[in-house]
Amino acid sequence: MAKIKVGVVGATGYAGAELCRIIYSHPEAELTAISSVSFEGQELSEVYPAYREMIDKVLVNEDEVIEKSDVVFAALPHGLSQELAAKCDKAGKKFIDFGADFRLKDEEVYKKWYGPSFTDKALHEKAVYGQPELFREYIKGKTIVANPGCYTTAVPLALAPALKAGLISTEGIIADCKSGVTGAGRKPTQGNHYPDLNEGFYAYKVANHRHGPEINQTLSKITGEDVKVTFVPHLLPVNRGILATCYAKMTEGVTEEQFWNAYHEAYDNEFFVRLLPKGKCADIHNIKYTNFCDVSLFFDWENGLLIAISAIDNMVKGAAGQAVQNMNIIFGLDEKTGLDFVPPAF
Amino acid sequence: MAKIKVGVVGATGYAGAELCRIIYSHPEAELTAISSVSFEGQELSEVYPAYREMIDKVLVNEDEVIEKSDVVFAALPHGLSQELAAKCDKAGKKFIDFGADFRLKDEEVYKKWYGPSFTDKALHEKAVYGQPELFREYIKGKTIVANPGCYTTAVPLALAPALKAGLISTEGIIADCKSGVTGAGRKPTQGNHYPDLNEGFYAYKVANHRHGPEINQTLSKITGEDVKVTFVPHLLPVNRGILATCYAKMTEGVTEEQFWNAYHEAYDNEFFVRLLPKGKCADIHNIKYTNFCDVSLFFDWENGLLIAISAIDNMVKGAAGQAVQNMNIIFGLDEKTGLDFVPPAF
Amino acid sequence: MAKIKVGVVGATGYAGAELCRIIYSHPEAELTAISSVSFEGQELSEVYPAYREMIDKVLVNEDEVIEKSDVVFAALPHGLSQELAAKCDKAGKKFIDFGADFRLKDEEVYKKWYGPSFTDKALHEKAVYGQPELFREYIKGKTIVANPGCYTTAVPLALAPALKAGLISTEGIIADCKSGVTGAGRKPTQGNHYPDLNEGFYAYKVANHRHGPEINQTLSKITGEDVKVTFVPHLLPVNRGILATCYAKMTEGVTEEQFWNAYHEAYDNEFFVRLLPKGKCADIHNIKYTNFCDVSLFFDWENGLLIAISAIDNMVKGAAGQAVQNMNIIFGLDEKTGLDFVPPAF
Amino acid sequence: MAKIKVGVVGATGYAGAELCRIIYSHPEAELTAISSVSFEGQELSEVYPAYREMIDKVLVNEDEVIEKSDVVFAALPHGLSQELAAKCDKAGKKFIDFGADFRLKDEEVYKKWYGPSFTDKALHEKAVYGQPELFREYIKGKTIVANPGCYTTAVPLALAPALKAGLISTEGIIADCKSGVTGAGRKPTQGNHYPDLNEGFYAYKVANHRHGPEINQTLSKITGEDVKVTFVPHLLPVNRGILATCYAKMTEGVTEEQFWNAYHEAYDNEFFVRLLPKGKCADIHNIKYTNFCDVSLFFDWENGLLIAISAIDNMVKGAAGQAVQNMNIIFGLDEKTGLDFVPPAF
Repeated sequence: MAKIKVGVVGATGYAGAELCRIIYSHPEAELTAISSVSFEGQELSEVYPAYREMIDKVLVNEDEVIEKSDVVFAALPHGLSQELAAKCDKAGKKFIDFGADFRLKDEEVYKKWYGPSFTDKALHEKAVYGQPELFREYIKGKTIVANPGCYTTAVPLALAPALKAGLISTEGIIADCKSGVTGAGRKPTQGNHYPDLNEGFYAYKVANHRHGPEINQTLSKITGEDVKVTFVPHLLPVNRGILATCYAKMTEGVTEEQFWNAYHEAYDNEFFVRLLPKGKCADIHNIKYTNFCDVSLFFDWENGLLIAISAIDNMVKGAAGQAVQNMNIIFGLDEKTGLDFVPPAF
Repeated sequence: MAKIKVGVVGATGYAGAELCRIIYSHPEAELTAISSVSFEGQELSEVYPAYREMIDKVLVNEDEVIEKSDVVFAALPHGLSQELAAKCDKAGKKFIDFGADFRLKDEEVYKKWYGPSFTDKALHEKAVYGQPELFREYIKGKTIVANPGCYTTAVPLALAPALKAGLISTEGIIADCKSGVTGAGRKPTQGNHYPDLNEGFYAYKVANHRHGPEINQTLSKITGEDVKVTFVPHLLPVNRGILATCYAKMTEGVTEEQFWNAYHEAYDNEFFVRLLPKGKCADIHNIKYTNFCDVSLFFDWENGLLIAISAIDNMVKGAAGQAVQNMNIIFGLDEKTGLDFVPPAF
Repeated sequence: MAKIKVGVVGATGYAGAELCRIIYSHPEAELTAISSVSFEGQELSEVYPAYREMIDKVLVNEDEVIEKSDVVFAALPHGLSQELAAKCDKAGKKFIDFGADFRLKDEEVYKKWYGPSFTDKALHEKAVYGQPELFREYIKGKTIVANPGCYTTAVPLALAPALKAGLISTEGIIADCKSGVTGAGRKPTQGNHYPDLNEGFYAYKVANHRHGPEINQTLSKITGEDVKVTFVPHLLPVNRGILATCYAKMTEGVTEEQFWNAYHEAYDNEFFVRLLPKGKCADIHNIKYTNFCDVSLFFDWENGLLIAISAIDNMVKGAAGQAVQNMNIIFGLDEKTGLDFVPPAF
Repeated sequence: MAKIKVGVVGATGYAGAELCRIIYSHPEAELTAISSVSFEGQELSEVYPAYREMIDKVLVNEDEVIEKSDVVFAALPHGLSQELAAKCDKAGKKFIDFGADFRLKDEEVYKKWYGPSFTDKALHEKAVYGQPELFREYIKGKTIVANPGCYTTAVPLALAPALKAGLISTEGIIADCKSGVTGAGRKPTQGNHYPDLNEGFYAYKVANHRHGPEINQTLSKITGEDVKVTFVPHLLPVNRGILATCYAKMTEGVTEEQFWNAYHEAYDNEFFVRLLPKGKCADIHNIKYTNFCDVSLFFDWENGLLIAISAIDNMVKGAAGQAVQNMNIIFGLDEKTGLDFVPPAF
């Protein structure tokens, strides 16, 4: 079988660059064209010298990417994906979006948090929210995939089995999340200037982050109820990784065994979710550079709280890796193709 | 006035060493004797070469420390302070304890979390819990002070004004805390081995940490109710600092103004607590190497939650600095004497 | 063709663990048995939770490893490899050693720096020093390979082309090297305790490190002269990577073109050595988690000095990766099989 | 005596901000006015929230600073200090410059490395190069002081005693230096963006850095010979600190005792230089946040090399601290006034 021809629009951002790296080693796909507005005409390895002699491909423009590819991945600023999706759709190319344009199903919510309107509602109808472990069946056969955000992957994977099984309340959920710096992107800012961030730690956009409504959408879809999470992100002085510490009120009368059963049932057959044994806590150290989501469970019986802690690499399971997982699904490949990396031990 | 003669038992642990550094620059105190079981006979600067030519004092034994001092600070493993406190009491020396022996008033709670029993109950009666901003009036005139733990300083300072003013419920409080590595002490362990911790992040002793009952004791004393916090500590890959992200249910009908009023009233005259303006979040970067506690307030009105975030240096306001603040109180000095450090900007 | 059966003795040290990770993804090899004295009976993923559900293999003893393998890799404390090599030799198994026992050809030098004597000189005769780029022809067909140390890979690769071409003097070479912390091993020590090392930087074993004589041996073999380098290692507060900044006196009358020609000739066909373009400096950031050695050249014409700067991952090209490269050679595989990782961009 | 009125022009850069912090605690000086072009009208603590409630002073303009001060410190981009110095000179205010405008005595060298010409040669005649330990006698009584650069403090302090005593050659000196990131300033750049620098390490401006000619000037002045050092700076992923590893050829026939004697004689009475005992290496960990320069000596007798390693905090002894030391000298205060900080142990 011919390899899938992969194009990347916006290849020089962190998520785009990580995607190129994953595709480079993917046995059933090849990188055929990559684009960048800022660096057009340069080689990707001039922007990322780590890629020298491996991914020296020259950055071209968007149209050339569409033309040369079976599937186009877009890592663009929010609002710019809709037009590109329309072009891909017309050209019969599959489209996987790293941005938020197709993530939120409710246009009003999208407008409130991101600004633009939906330019082509039919396109939005075609799009599917690509969180494989939760919505795999919806993804198969689709041509437009909205790849979830990073926090919005970590939090639902921590809570979904308990929510689905009715073991926790849909009210009063708190997600206290901590993310590595790559989540803020490649563009230098004062906040991410090395001396200003190093040896520092703080929360940002407290209960006011765009991923809040996206998490709510996912948890609401799972439960059929209107879930409203309190979502507080923090910035960790590390490059990669998200740890999501999630608090939820247990339903009256539940037992620890019920929780373990629900999570085992949900995840024992999920290659990319590793349910940790009792007493072990997820650690971003253990999933770096991989598509794994480690999930660990703790219980505060005195206060009737489940404490579910998950860890992902924000650039892999939280972006490029999950996007490739979605590609594998829509092209009918084994989901883990090209993604079965062993996490480095240090 | 003669300078206060300060002795330190257990000077080579992190908290003890930080204390020596603070006392060295204290205008009304002098370091007269320091001890260590492991390093007796060596100079402190052999253990901490940073101190060379500044604090080269030779480490002696405990008895010599007691003899030469007006006040003895003890940084000992839990359980060993009681005997030392008795000796100091008998010798008429003031005693400030970094350990937990005198922190918990309920012997059963102490035994459950630490093991030993109270060896001399009269001594425990004499001891006061030394959190100056909350219990200043109790501390004055005392001779035995139990210096609070690090988490147990950060969490109550974030929540006390709202609790006292009845603006939040005493039920369902969650304290999601993140601490720098020095909190785990000087002794090398696998978990704190550089490559194992660097670029990592995880929770530990989830809802099962010794500082939980201590936080409960403080919040219960403040409110007169039996408060039971859900306390989850995490380990940050930085040297110093604790960020406490605290979640509490607002009382029905409260307004934002009420919160700000309560916190201003509580902290505007507290030198060491800096209430940040609306929208700014506490950051451990901004309180490093100082005795400050920065407190910031956020509100999730949709879910009726106060999110109070505080930051302290775990080794200063969370240990040695607060101990010196207690010393200043019991010796009748201005509380900020020797403690008015400007935090480094980077 | 059947996959090569790989055994690892001492799999729980950093180099051993990294080797297991590489072999796991190697298309022509499989991990058949691993051993550890300290953790026998446990799964490797209990020691390194990052490996959970990937490398859960149980640690056995040395003899079982030998029995089940075509090739045995040993990551043992110095002095213990000789006996193991003898066993493997007798059993007809290939042997690749991470330790120093077979690296130094001169027994007196070995005894001076490591202590033990050569227990079986015939075995030492059979052993080859496995630096593929410099000694590839000697390695082919061998059954005992001494895998070079980390510094001893970085320094010779920076200087060899200039030395071979006679462009620099063999006298007065200085190698100022900086290594990440994993080079010091997995065992916790005070020096590598997180708070003691973080935000620190210093030199150690100045002009007195065991890798000095090994570097000398390599450079002497290349040049036919008795080279004595001044070697000064420093400890970097990062997990992985070595940067070697090498200073050497230019031969009278040489031109910059001659240097570039010599290096291009030496390395243009070497997959794992990337000669950087003029003006670019090697950075450990760009070779992390890969078997690459980046080499960059600078010239101080005023003082007649070549400044050759190389970067490797001390755990890959400096240990486990180069060992697999050696395995590929002695088994007749393409050298880059299982080793063509793209370095992460961040 | 009235306190010295201190003004800072360019107070929002890293060096300016550090200076404000030091002056805040200086017992004989007070911060009377600070300026910034970019942040005029704001409080310094808005730029550096660490300073809140301590240094909330409003940033004004340059002229107001001159008017209100006895001494003006300038932390400006190179080339802009000359005009300011002239204004201060006319107004009878002392002037201490963090920039390079008055450092290089040879106008041609200055033009080559920095661009501008000397606008007022008489002013340059008045200026003195402010390295107290080497040129104290020249500094006393001066009104214009060029504060040395960071590398140019660390390297000469490592080598001066040996050079002055004729124990090493003035030819072939190599200074392999490593600096923390604050040395590159507060302005965000791609290179200092957290994810791009973290876990990285490389050399920059190899044998081509502006501090090279400044080091040469200092060493030449000390020796009376035309010294030309090979200077190679590297960027360390830490906030603060410079380690300078200096290599120099020993003069024929010298003994180790001669070196120790020369260094003891030079530094035993220098409060800010700590000569480490034999076998101990300077570590940036041990001088952080202080004005100390730690100096350590090693010897490669086989190759006839002195290896002198020094460590300073680039922002204190390498900038703001040394500037205050110069202020103390020109105002006739004890040099260590306001500068006798104990380095934190961690």
